[in-house]
Amino acid sequence: MSNVTPEAVSPARLSLRLVRIDTYHENVAYMHRDCEVYRAEGFKALSKVEVRTNGQRILATLNVVDDEAIVTCGELGLSKAAFAQMGVEDGHTVTVSQAEPPESMGALNRKLGGERLDREDFRAIIQDVAEHHYSKIELTAFVVATHRDELDREEVYFLTEAMIDVGRRLDWHEPLVVDKHCIGGIPGNRTSMLVLPIVAAHGTLFPKTSSRAITSPAGTADTMEVLANVELPIEQLHEIVRTHRGCLAWGGTANLSPADDVLISVERPLSLDSPGQMVASILSKKIAAGSTHLVLDIPIGPTAKVRSMPDAQRLRRLFEYVARRMKLSLDVVITDGRQPIGFGIGPVLEARDVMRVLENDPRAPADLRQKALRLAGRLIECDPDVRGGDGFAIARDILDSGRALTKMNNIIQAQGSYSFDHNHPDLGALTFEVRAPRAGVVTGIDNLQLARMARFAGAPKVKSAGVDLMCKLGDVVDVDTLLYRVHAGYPSDLEFARQASHKSCGYTIGLAEDVPHVFVEF
Amino acid sequence: MSNVTPEAVSPARLSLRLVRIDTYHENVAYMHRDCEVYRAEGFKALSKVEVRTNGQRILATLNVVDDEAIVTCGELGLSKAAFAQMGVEDGHTVTVSQAEPPESMGALNRKLGGERLDREDFRAIIQDVAEHHYSKIELTAFVVATHRDELDREEVYFLTEAMIDVGRRLDWHEPLVVDKHCIGGIPGNRTSMLVLPIVAAHGTLFPKTSSRAITSPAGTADTMEVLANVELPIEQLHEIVRTHRGCLAWGGTANLSPADDVLISVERPLSLDSPGQMVASILSKKIAAGSTHLVLDIPIGPTAKVRSMPDAQRLRRLFEYVARRMKLSLDVVITDGRQPIGFGIGPVLEARDVMRVLENDPRAPADLRQKALRLAGRLIECDPDVRGGDGFAIARDILDSGRALTKMNNIIQAQGSYSFDHNHPDLGALTFEVRAPRAGVVTGIDNLQLARMARFAGAPKVKSAGVDLMCKLGDVVDVDTLLYRVHAGYPSDLEFARQASHKSCGYTIGLAEDVPHVFVEF
Repeated sequence: MSNVTPEAVSPARLSLRLVRIDTYHENVAYMHRDCEVYRAEGFKALSKVEVRTNGQRILATLNVVDDEAIVTCGELGLSKAAFAQMGVEDGHTVTVSQAEPPESMGALNRKLGGERLDREDFRAIIQDVAEHHYSKIELTAFVVATHRDELDREEVYFLTEAMIDVGRRLDWHEPLVVDKHCIGGIPGNRTSMLVLPIVAAHGTLFPKTSSRAITSPAGTADTMEVLANVELPIEQLHEIVRTHRGCLAWGGTANLSPADDVLISVERPLSLDSPGQMVASILSKKIAAGSTHLVLDIPIGPTAKVRSMPDAQRLRRLFEYVARRMKLSLDVVITDGRQPIGFGIGPVLEARDVMRVLENDPRAPADLRQKALRLAGRLIECDPDVRGGDGFAIARDILDSGRALTKMNNIIQAQGSYSFDHNHPDLGALTFEVRAPRAGVVTGIDNLQLARMARFAGAPKVKSAGVDLMCKLGDVVDVDTLLYRVHAGYPSDLEFARQASHKSCGYTIGLAEDVPHVFVEF
Repeated sequence: MSNVTPEAVSPARLSLRLVRIDTYHENVAYMHRDCEVYRAEGFKALSKVEVRTNGQRILATLNVVDDEAIVTCGELGLSKAAFAQMGVEDGHTVTVSQAEPPESMGALNRKLGGERLDREDFRAIIQDVAEHHYSKIELTAFVVATHRDELDREEVYFLTEAMIDVGRRLDWHEPLVVDKHCIGGIPGNRTSMLVLPIVAAHGTLFPKTSSRAITSPAGTADTMEVLANVELPIEQLHEIVRTHRGCLAWGGTANLSPADDVLISVERPLSLDSPGQMVASILSKKIAAGSTHLVLDIPIGPTAKVRSMPDAQRLRRLFEYVARRMKLSLDVVITDGRQPIGFGIGPVLEARDVMRVLENDPRAPADLRQKALRLAGRLIECDPDVRGGDGFAIARDILDSGRALTKMNNIIQAQGSYSFDHNHPDLGALTFEVRAPRAGVVTGIDNLQLARMARFAGAPKVKSAGVDLMCKLGDVVDVDTLLYRVHAGYPSDLEFARQASHKSCGYTIGLAEDVPHVFVEF
């Protein structure tokens, strides 16, 4: 009674068309409502379709269109990122069919049901994530179902390993390849741009690939970009590292841990930053970049990401467990995160602070210098020829002697120097100032509020925007002492920042004995 | 030093344009990459923008466009649903600005952090959901963070109440307004189309608004639509109910619990169906529809949504708790969910079964008739003039006498009759059959697999598609006895269904003593 054989069913063919819409990390396919295929196949808006050509295959979320200017009935439109993945020209014939759900959907559903996943489950999920098989809804479900304490440490290890396996992994062919990383949350904390030239000047291999800001007013890549080109092809990056023992480049071009970038696209709008995801994200990127030794900075303070010593210790143990499983030598340091580091917040302001430290300028922020020296000392001690405890003094010698500055200038030249005069930095011309409402001592500076103001002011997109701090914790102020100045490039940005400062200026003025104690030392 | 006053910042103005893309329940705004506003305001792809005109205000997710055929630099494009919400014409001037996050984002973040939310939190979240202020990412985060046991019963009550408060609420001005509902999962379970004419014929007010299929091969609205128009304006629906004491309409036009429709748009692709969300979804819709008394059907069986008696009892208690808080009189019945009800699965096939029961046709499925009579009996006993225990006999009299059929025909005429000959139903012309692989007794019929095949065959979109069962649990079969026939309207649909049946045919043949016992009776 069956009157159709499988052979009789041929997949529907359409002509491919680039739809110039940026849908970020989600593949979107556009099909006209009157398209034969749409009507015959029983597609639904938001259902998944599989698009194939020349052995290439992608999954995309379907948007139904009623405008022939976007797609005609004979065409299949793809959003920009999806089109690029197909790797063919406009007008190429593609076949379209209803997509089977991604193969890892069973594993995702088990995680949603509260079950523990195994190595193969994570491998399958992360493969689908990296290949853009997940919709935004599915990505979000994975991220929420694995946040907080939903992952045990073994699962975090599986997740980390899977994230490394789907991307490129660099091999420097040396036994000692160091890196440093901070979990973030402290504005102005640009130690990498000091630690790198010091450690590279010592001779230790330090191929630093940094991120751009995700939720902060500046990432190391954003700040370095004030001084030099950071978007280096992978070959040039290798060449620079071989010659100079280090670089300060953006990691995005290297395709290290590509699944991480996709997951971040949903974590960012939700401000999710759970321990398991943080560990997998950081360690997968570092291991993929070929690091053998990592110094990890966990700042702790009332407005830092980590607010208590027990939380910091728990996070430290999770990092250490996964690092050990991955054979990465890890040194965790818990640092003072009570306030921003340095004076400037925002790319240009931070680049100014960094150059002042490198030049041993008396206006250089002492806290930034001290923290960078301590971190550099730890990394230098990874060198088997250096005795434990000697690292700090070696780092200080390299900085004080100007060798770190020379190294930095060499790296800047190699990456492609941009003109920047840190003595007269080009700061956003629109400004407002915030002054002390009463006399007393600065007893609190809110990292989150200062970061928010710098972002509202335009950082990091507007490099010259940000906040310049005049007072730090413990400083004695009079009524109307200048606390900080906000710089912006556009009137509406300035207004956003001003409104934020009116809600809360971010400073607390009180009595000397109310200054929170430094409860960490390394 | 401040050189810009707040007054100097005017929001950016653009000309509104309808972009004919169906993005389902997510508002999307399209802005050209070279648009002054985009560049000046520092918008990012996927960030939220606020669009305002004439006192109307919506939030939308931003897609950046590089094609002037979609939007020009002076225009702001809106997806279809978003455009409709603005309620103005193409070319109208709108102002655009970066959106503050939805006000309830703090509450959502607390839920993501594992905290318990209070009444005001749920009110704020559901308000934002109903007004389309949430992106798909935020919606998914809410749904995943509140699924499984993440909501306590008090929170489920707050959620239910909030869902009612944001929509329309009907008032029938009568003391007794009944409804019935099944939690779903059992194919062919079309009892509402029998219970309604029986109970309405008894004279009890029964304004049934049904849903379309979400993940099943047919909802009551899909099946009723074989017989009559179900998309009724709210005034006509009222008129029919006043005249006939009942109706069988689709609930979507009535704007009852609009947040529920938005949440379902992300629950569906994830196949999420947690107790808390189920209770809030069902009870909010029923209470908004003005019901005072509800009979709720929880089927239980190895492939039903609820698989054990303890789970059924836990779910019953949650329904009862929330119903009591909402002052809804609730009667929960736990029913036999071991296999599909009736013979047909799919709109036309199910409509055929329903009409045969109403006509007392000897070919009518006995299980569908029996279950409908029992449910109708329970509802009739809500009438204070009926003695406890008499409901079933009254229901049977109404059905056997033909009064239920007359009532059904009157309602069909009132809603707008479609031609349908249930003696010669117009079934999908493409078919295949599945036969018993060996002799024995039918010991299992997999609800999920049969529903999947009916959906692959095209149901409910193709009304004539589905599965027609020839054998039920306990039936004795020989080798090659016909188990079921699959009907489809399109070759590719038939092929999908066939592939599914090859993976698993859905039937188990074994020994008479292996038939699972009926462990429920009501």
